[in-house]
Amino acid sequence: MKVGFIGLGQMGAGMAANLAKAGHEVIVWNRSASKAEPLAKAGAKVAADIREACQAEAVFSMLADDEAVRSVVFDAGGVLEALPKGATHISSSTISVALADEFASAHAKAGQGFVSSPVFGRPEAAAAGKLFVVAAGAPKLVEAARPLLDAIGQRTFAMSEEPSIANLVKLSGNFLIACVIESLGEAMALVGKAGVDRAQYLELLTSTLFSAPVYKTYGGLIVEGKFQPAGFAAPLGQKDIRLALAAAEKLEVPLPIASLLRDRFLALMAAGGEGLDWSAVGALAARDAGLEPLPRAG
Amino acid sequence: MKVGFIGLGQMGAGMAANLAKAGHEVIVWNRSASKAEPLAKAGAKVAADIREACQAEAVFSMLADDEAVRSVVFDAGGVLEALPKGATHISSSTISVALADEFASAHAKAGQGFVSSPVFGRPEAAAAGKLFVVAAGAPKLVEAARPLLDAIGQRTFAMSEEPSIANLVKLSGNFLIACVIESLGEAMALVGKAGVDRAQYLELLTSTLFSAPVYKTYGGLIVEGKFQPAGFAAPLGQKDIRLALAAAEKLEVPLPIASLLRDRFLALMAAGGEGLDWSAVGALAARDAGLEPLPRAG
Amino acid sequence: MKVGFIGLGQMGAGMAANLAKAGHEVIVWNRSASKAEPLAKAGAKVAADIREACQAEAVFSMLADDEAVRSVVFDAGGVLEALPKGATHISSSTISVALADEFASAHAKAGQGFVSSPVFGRPEAAAAGKLFVVAAGAPKLVEAARPLLDAIGQRTFAMSEEPSIANLVKLSGNFLIACVIESLGEAMALVGKAGVDRAQYLELLTSTLFSAPVYKTYGGLIVEGKFQPAGFAAPLGQKDIRLALAAAEKLEVPLPIASLLRDRFLALMAAGGEGLDWSAVGALAARDAGLEPLPRAG
Amino acid sequence: MKVGFIGLGQMGAGMAANLAKAGHEVIVWNRSASKAEPLAKAGAKVAADIREACQAEAVFSMLADDEAVRSVVFDAGGVLEALPKGATHISSSTISVALADEFASAHAKAGQGFVSSPVFGRPEAAAAGKLFVVAAGAPKLVEAARPLLDAIGQRTFAMSEEPSIANLVKLSGNFLIACVIESLGEAMALVGKAGVDRAQYLELLTSTLFSAPVYKTYGGLIVEGKFQPAGFAAPLGQKDIRLALAAAEKLEVPLPIASLLRDRFLALMAAGGEGLDWSAVGALAARDAGLEPLPRAG
Repeated sequence: MKVGFIGLGQMGAGMAANLAKAGHEVIVWNRSASKAEPLAKAGAKVAADIREACQAEAVFSMLADDEAVRSVVFDAGGVLEALPKGATHISSSTISVALADEFASAHAKAGQGFVSSPVFGRPEAAAAGKLFVVAAGAPKLVEAARPLLDAIGQRTFAMSEEPSIANLVKLSGNFLIACVIESLGEAMALVGKAGVDRAQYLELLTSTLFSAPVYKTYGGLIVEGKFQPAGFAAPLGQKDIRLALAAAEKLEVPLPIASLLRDRFLALMAAGGEGLDWSAVGALAARDAGLEPLPRAG
Repeated sequence: MKVGFIGLGQMGAGMAANLAKAGHEVIVWNRSASKAEPLAKAGAKVAADIREACQAEAVFSMLADDEAVRSVVFDAGGVLEALPKGATHISSSTISVALADEFASAHAKAGQGFVSSPVFGRPEAAAAGKLFVVAAGAPKLVEAARPLLDAIGQRTFAMSEEPSIANLVKLSGNFLIACVIESLGEAMALVGKAGVDRAQYLELLTSTLFSAPVYKTYGGLIVEGKFQPAGFAAPLGQKDIRLALAAAEKLEVPLPIASLLRDRFLALMAAGGEGLDWSAVGALAARDAGLEPLPRAG
Repeated sequence: MKVGFIGLGQMGAGMAANLAKAGHEVIVWNRSASKAEPLAKAGAKVAADIREACQAEAVFSMLADDEAVRSVVFDAGGVLEALPKGATHISSSTISVALADEFASAHAKAGQGFVSSPVFGRPEAAAAGKLFVVAAGAPKLVEAARPLLDAIGQRTFAMSEEPSIANLVKLSGNFLIACVIESLGEAMALVGKAGVDRAQYLELLTSTLFSAPVYKTYGGLIVEGKFQPAGFAAPLGQKDIRLALAAAEKLEVPLPIASLLRDRFLALMAAGGEGLDWSAVGALAARDAGLEPLPRAG
Repeated sequence: MKVGFIGLGQMGAGMAANLAKAGHEVIVWNRSASKAEPLAKAGAKVAADIREACQAEAVFSMLADDEAVRSVVFDAGGVLEALPKGATHISSSTISVALADEFASAHAKAGQGFVSSPVFGRPEAAAAGKLFVVAAGAPKLVEAARPLLDAIGQRTFAMSEEPSIANLVKLSGNFLIACVIESLGEAMALVGKAGVDRAQYLELLTSTLFSAPVYKTYGGLIVEGKFQPAGFAAPLGQKDIRLALAAAEKLEVPLPIASLLRDRFLALMAAGGEGLDWSAVGALAARDAGLEPLPRAG
C-alpha cells in the first residue's frame, strides 16, 4: 500500500521503517527534517510537507501529545485538508479520548476514514516490529489497515467500532503500567529498607507470579536506579495519567491509584525529574522512606 | 525424612499430601480431627496431639494467622515445648514479621532450629505441589529443609539468614497481588463504563504486557464477578495488608497504595464481604463508579 | 459610582442588591431576564443587553463557571467589546487561574482595567452583605473599586497586584472548606458507628477547638443529612476542586487531599448526587462504613 | 477532695497544679522524681510510690501512651492493686479504645470506679486550666469527678456511659486537628509556590471562615516553620493517628485522610523528624512541591 507517516520520533522512526521493510510504499514527514534521513536510507520517500505525505491510501500520525497531533491535523495544509476523500488517517499517538472523538467527527464530515490505533511498547519494540496494536474504527477501515498494522506490531487487537475506545484502552493500559511502577517502588522501598537485595527480590517476583514483561522491564530500571536515557519520558507518562483522569472524570469513575500517580508525577517534576524516564516515579517511595534522594536528570 | 505437619486447611492439606507423596514419613495434626482423614488415606500418620506431631526431624506449621500459630507454638504442650533439640520448626504460615522474630529467638534459646518458609500460590497450587517457597534462616537449616520444601513447591528461593525476612517478602508479595487486584478493578471500571467488553479487555492485557498469572487469575475473577467460593478469603487478605503496614511502620516506610488497600478492605467488610474472595476488592471501583452494587456473600 | 452587574444567580442577586442599597447606580443584566425583576424593585436599572450593562465605570461579572464568564466577556457584544476604555471589569466568579490571566491580558490590551475579586460566603452571606472579598489587581484599580467591594462584603483583602492570585486564593479556600467537609464526614462516620450522638459530637467540636463558621455550617448539614436545597451545588464544588488541581498541576504542587476530594466528587456524581449540596461529599465516609446509603437528589 | 495524680509531664504538671490551686488535697507521683518538685512548691504532697498516690478518693493518670499507662495500672503495686474499693481511676491520657475497655472491665471487677476523661489542649492550656475535658463513664462517677474535671479545664463534656467512647472522641478530635495541619500544609504549598505571602494568607483565612484556634495555632507554626520545641511531639501525633486507625479498623470504618496522615507521619519520621512538633507534617506538602527541604530536629 501507499502510506504516509507523520512523526519520526523514538517510536515513529521504527514504525515507519517497519512499514517500508514490509514492502509498503512509505512517504515520511517530520517537523525537523534531519530525523527523516535514516528513513530515506531505509527506502522511504521524504515528503516536503504534510500535504505531500498525505497523497496516499492511508497516513499515520505518531506524535507526542494532543497539541502536536491537533496542529498536524487541523492546521492549514494539515492532514484534514490534504488527505484525499476515501483515504484513512491512522492515529497511533497516545492522545485524549476527546481529541480522538473530534478527529472521528471531522474526518467523517470530510469523507475521510479514521482509525485509532495506539500501540503498546517502548522504542525497542517499535524498532523490532514487536508492538501491540489496539485498533478501533469502522470494521471495514480497520480490516483495510490491517496489513499496515501487522507490519508495525506483533499482534493487532480490534476493540470497537468507536475509534476513541482504542485511546481509552491505551490510556488505561499506561495507567496499569504506572500502577506496576508505583507498586514495585513501594514494595522495594519496604524490603530494601529491611536489607533485602532488591535484584534478588525482583528475580523472585518475576520468576513466579509476576512473570510479565512490565515487571521485568520496570523492576529492572527501579533496581538499577537507571532513569536515563528516558525510553518514555516522565512528562509523557504524566500526560497519560492526566488523560486517563480526564476520561474518567467525564465517565464519572473515581480512580484512586491514578490520583496518587498524578501526585507522584507532580512530585517528580517538582524535584527536577522532567528529563528522566517515567519509571523514576518508582523511586519516590524510597525517597519518602528516607532511603535515597531522588535522582536528578543529568 | 520424618516430618510433622500442623494445620490441614485449604493450603496445608495439599502441602502435607505432597510431602507424603515424595516419600517422607509424615505425621499430621489438625485442631478439628476430621480434616486429617484424607491425609491418612494419602499415607500420613495422624497424631493424637501436637506433641506427637513434633516427634520428627522437622515440623511444619501452616495456619491462618498469628493468633493460631502463636497458640500452637507457645501454649503448653505446643511446638516449643514438644520439639526435640536439634529439630527444626518450619513456619509456612503468612505471619507477622514480629512473630517470626519471636519464634526465631524462642527456638534458638530452646536449642531448636527455625526456618521461615512462607509460600506463594492458591489452594490449587498447594495441591499440585506448584507453590513458590520463600525460605530464610541459618543456611545449614535451610539446606537441610530443602528436600521438604522442594516437595511442596516448584521452586524454593533462599532469601536471607534472618528468618523474618521471608515473612516480609511474602507480605510484600501479597501486597503486590492486592495492587494488581485494585489496579485491574479501577481499569475495568473505567473501560467497562465506556462499554468495552471486559473479558476482551482482559484478553488484550494478558496476551501482551501483563502476561503474568496474577493478572489472568484475578482479572478473570473480577470480570466474572465470581468471588465465591473464596480461594483466599477477604479477611486473610485484609490481615496481610495489615501485617505489611505494621512491618512498614516499624521500618518507617510510607506505602500509599497499601493504605488505600487497607481502606478498601474495610469498605468490603463494612458491606458484608467477609465471606468473599479477596479479589472482591476489585469490585469496589465499579461500585464507586455507580456501575453495580457490591456482591454479598451468599 | 455607576456600576454594571452581570449574573443574577443565588450569589449575584444579593451582591447587586447590596450595591444598589449602598447608593451606587446599578444596571443589571442576566441571561434569563426574569431574575432581574427583583433587582428592578430594589432600585437597579435593567439592561437590555451586556453592552448596556457595560456603560459604567465598572462592571461586575458573577457567573457559574469559566465557560459562562468566558462567553460573557469574549463573545461579540460582550464585556471586552462593550466596556469603555478606562473602565474596570471586576470578576467575582470562581474561575480558573488561567482564565483570570487571559482576562488580565485582554483587558490590558483594550485599555480597560481588570480586578479579580472572588468572594467567600454562601447565598445568605451575599444577601446580607457579609461576604469576604479577596481582591487582586493594580493597586490603583483595587482602591478605586473598594467602595463597591465594601458594599458587598464585610471585609476586603487586597492580596496581590496580579489579578489571578485572588482566584488561586479563592480556589485554595474552597479546597480548605472541602477538606473540612471530608474530614468531618470521616470523623462522624467513626464516632457515629460507635453510637455517639453526632449532634452532641458536633456541639463539642464547635464549642472548643473547631469554633469556626465552616465547622458549624457544614457539620450541621452532615449531621442532619440535609443536602437539599443546595446552597452550593455539588457540581460547583467539583469544578472548584478541578480548578485547584489544575492550578496546582501548573505550579507542580502535589495535593493529596485534593486528589481524594476529586474522587469523592466523582463517586457522588456517579451515585446521582448532582442535585445535592457539595456537603454531601461528607456522607460518603458513612456510606463506605456501611452506615447509610447515599442520599439522592429528590 | 483527696486526689492522686500520676504523670507529671508537660500536660500533667499543669493539671495537677490546677487541682491543688482549686483547693483539692493533691498527692502526686512521677517516675522521675525531679518533676514532682515544682508541684510540692505548689502545695501538693509527693508520694513515694504509686501505692501512696492511690490513697485517695480518685487518682488521675496522665501519661504518654498505652504502654506507660498499662504498666502504671496493671503492674504489681500499680493502680489496680493499690486503689481502695469505691475510689475512682480517672484516665486522662490519650490511650487506645481497647485499653480503655480493659481498664473499665478490670476496675469494675475490683470494685473500683473508672472514668475516662481525655483532654483537648496543649501544655499552655493545661497550665492555664483552659483544657476541654471529654468525660465518659457511669453518670454517678462522672458527676462525682466533676469538681476535679472543672479544676483542670474550662468545660467538661459528658459524652457516654461507656468510658472508652471518650477516648474514641478524643482520638477523632486529634485526627481532625491533623486534618487541619495537612490541609493547611497543602494550601500553603499551593499559594506559597505562586508567591503569596503565607502569613497574609493565614490572616485572611483565620479572620474569615477559618476563625478557629486550631487554624491560628497550627497555621502559625507552619508559616513560621517553627517546629521546635515540640508542644506535642510528632511521635505522639503519629501514635494518635495509629490509635484512631485501630479503632476504625475494629469498627470497619475506612478513613482515607487518616491513612494519608499515617503515611505523612512515617515520611516525617524517616526524614529524621521525631524531635519536631507534630505540625511539621504540614511541611511535607511544601517539600513535595520542591519548595524547601524538611526541617530536621536540631
